[in-house]
Amino acid sequence: MSASPILSPLQLRQQIRLNQFTAHTSGQAPGFVQANLAIMPKQYAADFLQFCHFNPKPCPLLAMSATAGAVDMPQLAANLDIRTDIPKYRVFKQGQLTEEVSDITPFWQDDFVSFAIGCSFSFEEALIADGIEIRNITEQVNVPMYKTNIACQPAGVFSGNMVVSMRPMKPADAIRAIQICSRFPQVHGAPVHFADPAAIGITDINKPDFGDAVSIKAGEVPVFWACGVTPQVAIANAKLAICITHSPGYMLVTDLANSKLSLL
Amino acid sequence: MSASPILSPLQLRQQIRLNQFTAHTSGQAPGFVQANLAIMPKQYAADFLQFCHFNPKPCPLLAMSATAGAVDMPQLAANLDIRTDIPKYRVFKQGQLTEEVSDITPFWQDDFVSFAIGCSFSFEEALIADGIEIRNITEQVNVPMYKTNIACQPAGVFSGNMVVSMRPMKPADAIRAIQICSRFPQVHGAPVHFADPAAIGITDINKPDFGDAVSIKAGEVPVFWACGVTPQVAIANAKLAICITHSPGYMLVTDLANSKLSLL
Repeated sequence: MSASPILSPLQLRQQIRLNQFTAHTSGQAPGFVQANLAIMPKQYAADFLQFCHFNPKPCPLLAMSATAGAVDMPQLAANLDIRTDIPKYRVFKQGQLTEEVSDITPFWQDDFVSFAIGCSFSFEEALIADGIEIRNITEQVNVPMYKTNIACQPAGVFSGNMVVSMRPMKPADAIRAIQICSRFPQVHGAPVHFADPAAIGITDINKPDFGDAVSIKAGEVPVFWACGVTPQVAIANAKLAICITHSPGYMLVTDLANSKLSLL
Repeated sequence: MSASPILSPLQLRQQIRLNQFTAHTSGQAPGFVQANLAIMPKQYAADFLQFCHFNPKPCPLLAMSATAGAVDMPQLAANLDIRTDIPKYRVFKQGQLTEEVSDITPFWQDDFVSFAIGCSFSFEEALIADGIEIRNITEQVNVPMYKTNIACQPAGVFSGNMVVSMRPMKPADAIRAIQICSRFPQVHGAPVHFADPAAIGITDINKPDFGDAVSIKAGEVPVFWACGVTPQVAIANAKLAICITHSPGYMLVTDLANSKLSLL
């Protein structure tokens, strides 16, 4: 037996389209940007775009479809069909999750607008390359995420508090992580908080609202980043007639090199 | 009565030379780099230069005199006489402080080599410009400084642990401070630690080894920077026959704009 070959982003998307690849995308197509996805009717798109503009740390907009109904995003990915090229989607109706599917063609509307939002996978890769341990990767679980008391700036129908992801680190590593992540504002940038969880409204660090708990070792502090789940909360709050997102961890894999997002 | 005019660095140095200005230099010549000073016989200079090279965070070398006996540093300051243009000097013999004087001409030796090392005044100015409160400035005291258990890399006769300065901040301000200070490696750069003082060997945060204690408010963490007092400790440990430094807070005021030290 041999190890699986590393697929290019295009090869991976084509396997996903054919349902030959159905797993989460963490660790796939290393070196390339993966993105959060939000698809909604055009009538909400202007509000959502403004919500991203007002809240760039949790909602760093990488790209949106050029016209309503378009299924591609050529600036992010060649030969993309946004309806089939993500391994798992979530369909929300009136803010409630109703289905989880691998193909949204049956739900597609000619007025749908798609948004791709930066994802922490890019900065995790940069931190690991620098020798910093990422606990959720070491422990092979999803990153822990928490609802906070940090209010996003509302825009039209969209409002809600920020969701944050947490990675425990020794202070010296946290300082280095702040430096590295500051170069990547399009994938959430620098952390928004560290140390005391209660200061941002987190009551139990061992009970994340999304994802899995990770161990925090002696001498470490929790470090919190604005999280791409924030728009999902705002979307749920808005109770849109219909909205489609990726399923957490099952991302849009793009052709854009992570290094292209570095400011410096 | 009118406020004192703001003096240029050259005007200030000339007043210092004439003993018309005898105070500490904090807040003087705003916008210009101030430097720590170390003067020693040439026989120790190579070791000290290596100590700075090995320990750039506490000992970021801005300039050294071109030849033994030179009293100028034209790359830092016009018309400089290093013997008279600092308001207060400390003379150490065999590692012991023996005199504090405003003119070291009587002590001058033809084999003296002078070193100018970056100082936190530059990054404090950048932080204040960004709206971050610097507690020691608000409370009008000297910054608190602590001996740590972080060993410097020894070089020849020079060795010792790192001294750190401490400024309390809310985490969000600390994250911003890390970003700003990362642009200024020649004035100690990013912090080396935050939060638990015991992790770096500090037993009582309210009893600094140098400078003055400052209040730490609810929701703040202590943030620690490598400090320019570190070389003074290494110099004391080396028990040089003679060595001269500035007196803490009475710095060499240079003609170099702080902004020139920014990497970005």
